Amino acid sequence: MGRVTARRRVVRISADGERGTRADSLAGEEPLELRVGGRPLAVTMRTPGHDVDLALGFLVGEGIIGGGADVTAMRYCVGARSDVIGGDPSGAHQAPERQVPESQAGGGQTYNVLDITLAPAVALPDVSIERAFYTSSSCGLCGRTSIDGVRMRSRYTVADDPLVLRPDVLLVLPDRLRAEQKVFAVTGGLHAAAIADADGNLLVVREDVGRHNAVDKAIGWAVRDGQLPLRERVLVVSGRASFELAQKALLAGIPALVAVSAPSSLAAELAEESGMTLVGFVRGDSMNVYTGAHRIAGPLADSAASTSSGASTTNGATNSGTR
Amino acid sequence: MGRVTARRRVVRISADGERGTRADSLAGEEPLELRVGGRPLAVTMRTPGHDVDLALGFLVGEGIIGGGADVTAMRYCVGARSDVIGGDPSGAHQAPERQVPESQAGGGQTYNVLDITLAPAVALPDVSIERAFYTSSSCGLCGRTSIDGVRMRSRYTVADDPLVLRPDVLLVLPDRLRAEQKVFAVTGGLHAAAIADADGNLLVVREDVGRHNAVDKAIGWAVRDGQLPLRERVLVVSGRASFELAQKALLAGIPALVAVSAPSSLAAELAEESGMTLVGFVRGDSMNVYTGAHRIAGPLADSAASTSSGASTTNGATNSGTR
Repeated sequence: MGRVTARRRVVRISADGERGTRADSLAGEEPLELRVGGRPLAVTMRTPGHDVDLALGFLVGEGIIGGGADVTAMRYCVGARSDVIGGDPSGAHQAPERQVPESQAGGGQTYNVLDITLAPAVALPDVSIERAFYTSSSCGLCGRTSIDGVRMRSRYTVADDPLVLRPDVLLVLPDRLRAEQKVFAVTGGLHAAAIADADGNLLVVREDVGRHNAVDKAIGWAVRDGQLPLRERVLVVSGRASFELAQKALLAGIPALVAVSAPSSLAAELAEESGMTLVGFVRGDSMNVYTGAHRIAGPLADSAASTSSGASTTNGATNSGTR
Repeated sequence: MGRVTARRRVVRISADGERGTRADSLAGEEPLELRVGGRPLAVTMRTPGHDVDLALGFLVGEGIIGGGADVTAMRYCVGARSDVIGGDPSGAHQAPERQVPESQAGGGQTYNVLDITLAPAVALPDVSIERAFYTSSSCGLCGRTSIDGVRMRSRYTVADDPLVLRPDVLLVLPDRLRAEQKVFAVTGGLHAAAIADADGNLLVVREDVGRHNAVDKAIGWAVRDGQLPLRERVLVVSGRASFELAQKALLAGIPALVAVSAPSSLAAELAEESGMTLVGFVRGDSMNVYTGAHRIAGPLADSAASTSSGASTTNGATNSGTR
């Protein structure tokens, strides 16, 4: 199994040409090949770790599965050899993630190929070329060859989700996320995603060199824990909110997406159409609410319908120091 | 044709719940479907504009073409209708990019499907499933289904490139890139990539919601201009340096990759193997050189072989104010 970080010797150079060498930690990046029933499905460049969650989240984001019950087993394999990592032949609710012993991290087993066994009732992804493309990408979209394949039907709806979020809670989410970014702190080079509840508690935080992978790992954790659809939850991302990330939230039934940075035009369009709350530029003491402002507690400055009848008007006392 | 930015009404909320509405500009994001000879090849979520360059750079990064002469025509198409955008039936050197008239930006033509005609001598991407996957992704890698498809053979070598870079020149690249990020300035939501010469002049700057797209657009500009391989050039990226971006540089023959932020472990490995200079964390008055430090002018603090026999020792006078 690859490492989450890799040490390298680097040359540090200043403007006047002065040099010094030192050891630096880089974010680990290795390919992970996902197979379904032995057939290649996709390759993603990911930071090793939480691979089973990554696979589960990926399958949800591609619309292939709706929960952990749709997966009966996963195993790492290389060549003729394979080691069962998670498995539940009975098809019961959860696909457990087991730790791969460090002692196995050699001998030809690279832990970079993961074979997934779907439950009998789950339709295997069609292996015709059009369909294969359609479901091939860990980026959610970029591997698709047809625009028709871009928008996916979600089995969950979020428009009716009764989630209410307080502004002061939203404003501390970026700091809480950053505080949990243990690998970022060492490497400065990872995206992060978290699932939070309405009180701002982070239920899971995942990091990865790929932004989509971080989201897949976080959602995959919830899949494994039987939590889908993720009603009254918030998906928090460390960077920008793209269409793909909004769609991943939608397919997991998450009614709110909160981004530290900017959303794209199509992310806002999808959020609006699906009744999702999209918040961006959560920085300092303010944020931009692009869609679904009725879920933000407090006095409404515009005519947007409010479903938060019991929402209290927050006062000036922010709770950013209470975690 | 879609817009580079999209205006939306947003609700700005502060910690105490105070609200105001205002107009905000979001980075445009729309799918672009690439076809080769009428057959779907890939879909990428991109910021509209420079689509022909994006396609050319993508084809180089996938190893399908080695230069502009390998493409004879490109046309936007939708349904039965298509409009020729660029074309060179003679198979001559450059595939010109023409402006799409604003007046055509309606009437069912969405400018989101681009059909590419390759020169007769160029092998069409194999449409078998394995190969189709192999070449399907605009992310360079994430659409591939087999790990074997991750590393690609470049037709250009960079190890022998005589490029020499001065530290003070490298240190101003991030500021110069940011100064040219016109859409970022409005939206705060775009990646950027540039191709620079050894003196730090930016020859082309491109922005996109997708980091790989920004690089493809910049390299595609050079393809169209007949500049491949891009010897003695530098690829500058606004964010992190992933394996895919390093590989895109390698396939375009670029000997140096400079990232404002962190590289990944596999980016550093690929750069080392291919003899590319990889610089990261170019911030303030210092930078980290991960590989190929022999190309940085100045006294060498370590035993790395220097090919820059004529490199002058830079002195304390930085030239950051000279642009």
